[in-house]
Amino acid sequence: MKIALAQVNYLIGDFEGNRIKIVDCIRKARLQSVDLIVFSELSVCGYPPRDFLEFDDFILRSNRQIEIIAAECKDIAAIVGAPSVNEAPKGKPLFNSAYFLEAGKVKLIVHKTLLPNYDIFDEYRYFEPNRSFNIVDFKGVKIALTICEDLWNVSDNPLYILSPMEELVALKPDLMINISASPFNYNQLAERNEIMFRNTLRYKIPLVYVNHVGAQTELLFDGGSAVVDATGEVRLQCAFFEEDLKIVDMLQLETLPIVNSNDEKDKIALIHDALVMGIRDYFKKLNFQKAILGLSGGIDSAVTLALAAEALGKENVRPVLLPSRYSSDHSITDAIALAENIGCEYDQISIDKTFAAFEASLKPVFNNMPFGLAEENIQARTRAVLLMGMANKLGYILLNTSNKSEAAVGYGTLYGDMCGGISVLGDVYKTDVFLLAHYINRNQEIIPINSITKPPSAELRPNQKDSDSLPDYDLLDQILFLYIEQRKGPADIMKAGFDEAIVNRVLRMVNSNEWKRQQTPPILRVSYKAFGSGRRMPIVARYLL
Amino acid sequence: MKIALAQVNYLIGDFEGNRIKIVDCIRKARLQSVDLIVFSELSVCGYPPRDFLEFDDFILRSNRQIEIIAAECKDIAAIVGAPSVNEAPKGKPLFNSAYFLEAGKVKLIVHKTLLPNYDIFDEYRYFEPNRSFNIVDFKGVKIALTICEDLWNVSDNPLYILSPMEELVALKPDLMINISASPFNYNQLAERNEIMFRNTLRYKIPLVYVNHVGAQTELLFDGGSAVVDATGEVRLQCAFFEEDLKIVDMLQLETLPIVNSNDEKDKIALIHDALVMGIRDYFKKLNFQKAILGLSGGIDSAVTLALAAEALGKENVRPVLLPSRYSSDHSITDAIALAENIGCEYDQISIDKTFAAFEASLKPVFNNMPFGLAEENIQARTRAVLLMGMANKLGYILLNTSNKSEAAVGYGTLYGDMCGGISVLGDVYKTDVFLLAHYINRNQEIIPINSITKPPSAELRPNQKDSDSLPDYDLLDQILFLYIEQRKGPADIMKAGFDEAIVNRVLRMVNSNEWKRQQTPPILRVSYKAFGSGRRMPIVARYLL
Repeated sequence: MKIALAQVNYLIGDFEGNRIKIVDCIRKARLQSVDLIVFSELSVCGYPPRDFLEFDDFILRSNRQIEIIAAECKDIAAIVGAPSVNEAPKGKPLFNSAYFLEAGKVKLIVHKTLLPNYDIFDEYRYFEPNRSFNIVDFKGVKIALTICEDLWNVSDNPLYILSPMEELVALKPDLMINISASPFNYNQLAERNEIMFRNTLRYKIPLVYVNHVGAQTELLFDGGSAVVDATGEVRLQCAFFEEDLKIVDMLQLETLPIVNSNDEKDKIALIHDALVMGIRDYFKKLNFQKAILGLSGGIDSAVTLALAAEALGKENVRPVLLPSRYSSDHSITDAIALAENIGCEYDQISIDKTFAAFEASLKPVFNNMPFGLAEENIQARTRAVLLMGMANKLGYILLNTSNKSEAAVGYGTLYGDMCGGISVLGDVYKTDVFLLAHYINRNQEIIPINSITKPPSAELRPNQKDSDSLPDYDLLDQILFLYIEQRKGPADIMKAGFDEAIVNRVLRMVNSNEWKRQQTPPILRVSYKAFGSGRRMPIVARYLL
Repeated sequence: MKIALAQVNYLIGDFEGNRIKIVDCIRKARLQSVDLIVFSELSVCGYPPRDFLEFDDFILRSNRQIEIIAAECKDIAAIVGAPSVNEAPKGKPLFNSAYFLEAGKVKLIVHKTLLPNYDIFDEYRYFEPNRSFNIVDFKGVKIALTICEDLWNVSDNPLYILSPMEELVALKPDLMINISASPFNYNQLAERNEIMFRNTLRYKIPLVYVNHVGAQTELLFDGGSAVVDATGEVRLQCAFFEEDLKIVDMLQLETLPIVNSNDEKDKIALIHDALVMGIRDYFKKLNFQKAILGLSGGIDSAVTLALAAEALGKENVRPVLLPSRYSSDHSITDAIALAENIGCEYDQISIDKTFAAFEASLKPVFNNMPFGLAEENIQARTRAVLLMGMANKLGYILLNTSNKSEAAVGYGTLYGDMCGGISVLGDVYKTDVFLLAHYINRNQEIIPINSITKPPSAELRPNQKDSDSLPDYDLLDQILFLYIEQRKGPADIMKAGFDEAIVNRVLRMVNSNEWKRQQTPPILRVSYKAFGSGRRMPIVARYLL
């Protein structure tokens, strides 16, 4: 039996566009005598469709495309993902389903059993879980067909009381097929390999795994679809971070060379590739070409510009230098050197006149109070008004350049440097931004070394340094990681060897800045706990304050 | 048996503060020989705690308070709500529980069965559903103790396949007690009365219903705790929108006068009271006193100011007039008349100089392009910089004054008039803002009639009117209501009698402005489908565009 793995980049709600891509793959596969072609989870409507699922109209449009796709399935079968209506009188209105299409028709619909509802997932919001288990019989092969999370309940302390493969194995399947939309984080690839390994070893049958690829706003899907043999060896591996269509003859599976799944890229390289895809898809799927950003001479905007230039082309990025009376000379020279290394045009607009106009306008109400945080914020907001003005006038999207460390502790100005259509580095701690800069420079100096080595500064008052207000980033990032990624409380973090006063101060900063984070752009997600839809905190609260 | 209904305003994560309020109620009730005092859902930690529930530390702190509260329960029993740990090897780590405290100890813990996971609810994210059913036996009375949603599965097309009361009724209870945290919307009171009526009529036993009161950021809880007799008549009714502690002798229940639950306030009066509570609690719980806002002479900022003055006191609101070269004379006179009617101080700062400074700074890059949207946005953003500058310098929180109609279609400037700590009118359609203005004027003219009657205008270019860019609000709001609240697709909306071109245009505006709404402040929620956590849409998508 020849199976095709169709790893496709879908656009949510673009039913025609998605169907055209699906049909195109089916035709290509048929030309190569493929028996069965497999697409990823919710491929017809795109994943995650979120509350669009609550519109009957959305489900109708999805159903219409499935009919067209089914009609295409002659001399070939296909598995596509789409919502299906729950006809039972009780329960939620939809299932998250895999449609098995054969002989021009829907042969069988299999529903997802385990509905992830943690972190960025909300599937129980929409879907009723499956409770009945059937095997797909296709050309004499008995297929255990499951959807994403269905294979993931294999730990010693499982999140769900049921395990679909434990039910299906009683029906003696020959093959597992799993269709997924499993979002990337820098640990995900290792975890996914472990899950595929555990399942094949446990059930002693091969696994065909097809994952979604592409960015959906903040969620990044890395693809990496694969076929694993009955002994846990990866025999076929699709591309990462790009579309792919690969064909495997299951009878020849064990003659294929073993893919060394330990041959993984390191964390920083993965983050780099994920962010480039995230920027590219954000622009492409919204029909935008050009990005604008403020270039300060510091490392965050430098890394953002380099990533954007790689994603969009150097001709489509426009950095703007926005110096003030507090800017150091090197902030300008470093920024210009970067723009020249990248080979993009740049503008320079001083904010002194606009800032002075605000100072003059506010003088009567500020009443000779001394220079302070308000004046720092006005400078950052003046820059935002200039950048957004250029974006609106000239057709750019503003890139946000904040990193995860400063987003965590609120070291940034809301409506100032926290503006933008998408946040590129908002899930990358400052210490990893440095490593990203070195990675970008791996073949040649793109980011000026001085931008990497000089002490970080917001340059909003004379001789300001980040370290005036924050612990050193090495220390800060360790505490943040324990609190944000690891969900440790203050006692546990102190037990890990950190000073009580610093721990309390950092946790207080994180919790008291929730209001700022809830007004920031979506953040490209590369960790397993990013700010955004995966981390839901009350604004009004008094925990650890 | 004497039962006390303790309707309390909790602060999320403020374990000590909440415990002090709870113990205080217990002591008051004991003085009146109460047998059992009932608190609302998750009262110990506050509702909704969201991802704080993922911290072991948070659960430990909650458990510690329960011990202290239990120790207080001598000669009186209490029911409090709190998370409890799921000790089973499989399933989610917590239950949403009701603790029955008696004789200084935890006598029994009952778990919530039906976990709402729609609209603003995420309970399945944290909690395992209950699957075993027990009666609480207290002084010879058999109590069916349930939590909020557990009573709500009584429609003909139920969302859940299980109904906890159907299980409990087999154990022959004498009394239902339900502890709730049921957020307000202008339809909720009628629905809640219907639910109480249906349950008592079906099971023919009385119901003690205790609800949370107070605002939790965007969520407003209206209280309205009640006791309903076995025939569906309301015999005791707690206050709405404020704390209350009421005692009922269940043996005397049927001698109490019947409360006419049809005697409801109208929608606009409910919205008014809910918004005032929402503003007040937002400031109080964050330890802020003073609000600042831009006053345009239009109706949205006028209504916002009037509500804020009622919530915080006229001495704690500071409107700022920010006229430009495009402002009409009446925009200034109407704004001043309003401030004088309210009796609050106001400031006036022209934006002409700051706007001119931006125009001059951008001239080299704008290249003589004609005046357009970019320049309109710069004016709105200039106002935001001035307001935020004053807020930062002088210790104010900026109130957002956008209404739901403009938030829906994106008729507003991100980082401009869409700024603020909290949005007061973001869940009130423009047509209802007019009704709110009349309601505020019900006893005397507070909002100048001219602000109500003149055609709405953003005044960002000469002679601009909202109607230049948008359908009339009467028409627009009807289409928006069908799309947003009712989840109707374009075909159904046209069937309701609306023009195809206008429907398509409005829906396109709604969907293409998702990115703006995801960067706006939390919106006080008064409808059953507000922008915010209850409406989750992808930004990058192509549905109805």
